[in-house]
Amino acid sequence: MQALKKRILEEGRVSGDGILKVDSFLNHQIDPALMEEIGAEFGRRFAGERITRILTVETSGIAPALFAARQFRVPVVFAKKAGARNQDAHCYQAGVHSFTRDKDYIIQVSHRYLGPDDSVLLLDDFLANGQALIGLADIVAQAGARLVGAGIVIEKGFQDGGRLVRNMGIRVESLAVIRRMTQDRIEFDP
Amino acid sequence: MQALKKRILEEGRVSGDGILKVDSFLNHQIDPALMEEIGAEFGRRFAGERITRILTVETSGIAPALFAARQFRVPVVFAKKAGARNQDAHCYQAGVHSFTRDKDYIIQVSHRYLGPDDSVLLLDDFLANGQALIGLADIVAQAGARLVGAGIVIEKGFQDGGRLVRNMGIRVESLAVIRRMTQDRIEFDP
Repeated sequence: MQALKKRILEEGRVSGDGILKVDSFLNHQIDPALMEEIGAEFGRRFAGERITRILTVETSGIAPALFAARQFRVPVVFAKKAGARNQDAHCYQAGVHSFTRDKDYIIQVSHRYLGPDDSVLLLDDFLANGQALIGLADIVAQAGARLVGAGIVIEKGFQDGGRLVRNMGIRVESLAVIRRMTQDRIEFDP
Repeated sequence: MQALKKRILEEGRVSGDGILKVDSFLNHQIDPALMEEIGAEFGRRFAGERITRILTVETSGIAPALFAARQFRVPVVFAKKAGARNQDAHCYQAGVHSFTRDKDYIIQVSHRYLGPDDSVLLLDDFLANGQALIGLADIVAQAGARLVGAGIVIEKGFQDGGRLVRNMGIRVESLAVIRRMTQDRIEFDP
């Protein structure tokens, strides 16, 4: 997706520890016009699929998930990171390891908002190690729902997640795949 | 806003400790069609105002903020709750006490995404004690930006926040104001 790649090249910043920051349009400030284009692109990529719900995880997956959900006229469900007191007691749960933050956490989805009649598209801002996506796929399996695939805004193609998730038989559509990056230069897969 | 009040009456659940859960369309599952209507209503209420950025706080403020931002063709900035390792070092900060979770936390906004040329609309899902809104207003003041007002999806009119924030001279537009609620019944201000 050219408009997205252009924004990553112009505004992305690679930190010393290998983190790509796209805080100006996705992870801190959000550009709704770009999110709308991103939603439309996911609409094209998954056109013809039966989708009843889009599942993401708080926080940064919510914006692209919402605009994809508009295309399919379905609700977004965002998995919550555990700990909040007013969390529903009846939840699907999965453990996720975050390499970025070097810690383990639990993601939860209420039984109310996912069930065996659902056909679910996963949506997330980044795919790097694949841990969040694997946790979400686990929750879809626990619900007995059908997994349509995963829409990713930015995939770090040089990390393991994409291969790992595709080897599980999950269709992954990434709008920008980064082949390699340094503090000076970001290169995409064609 | 009638469509919103209808959804609150039909789907809202009041827990024993006085928390209104609207998890089916706002706080866990999100209905993008309702969010679009909510965004349009904020567009009408603040029509004619100069707005350069919409400021909210993660997580549940993001959806209504995005659809309001579409109306004004401006970016959303969401304040982050402190602790993340890949947080920008140069931030405006404010302390917020959460009565719901009975704890204090810090909200942060990078200097990059708010400055003295900005004219800011605050947006949040709930107004109860007003602590989050006061923290966001403090950040706008630190940035030297102009505060246009605050758009709130659901105001708990029986708690102190609305009075507190309006007494600070801040214009507050709430789409549904709850006058009183019990586990059996929810009543709105007209």
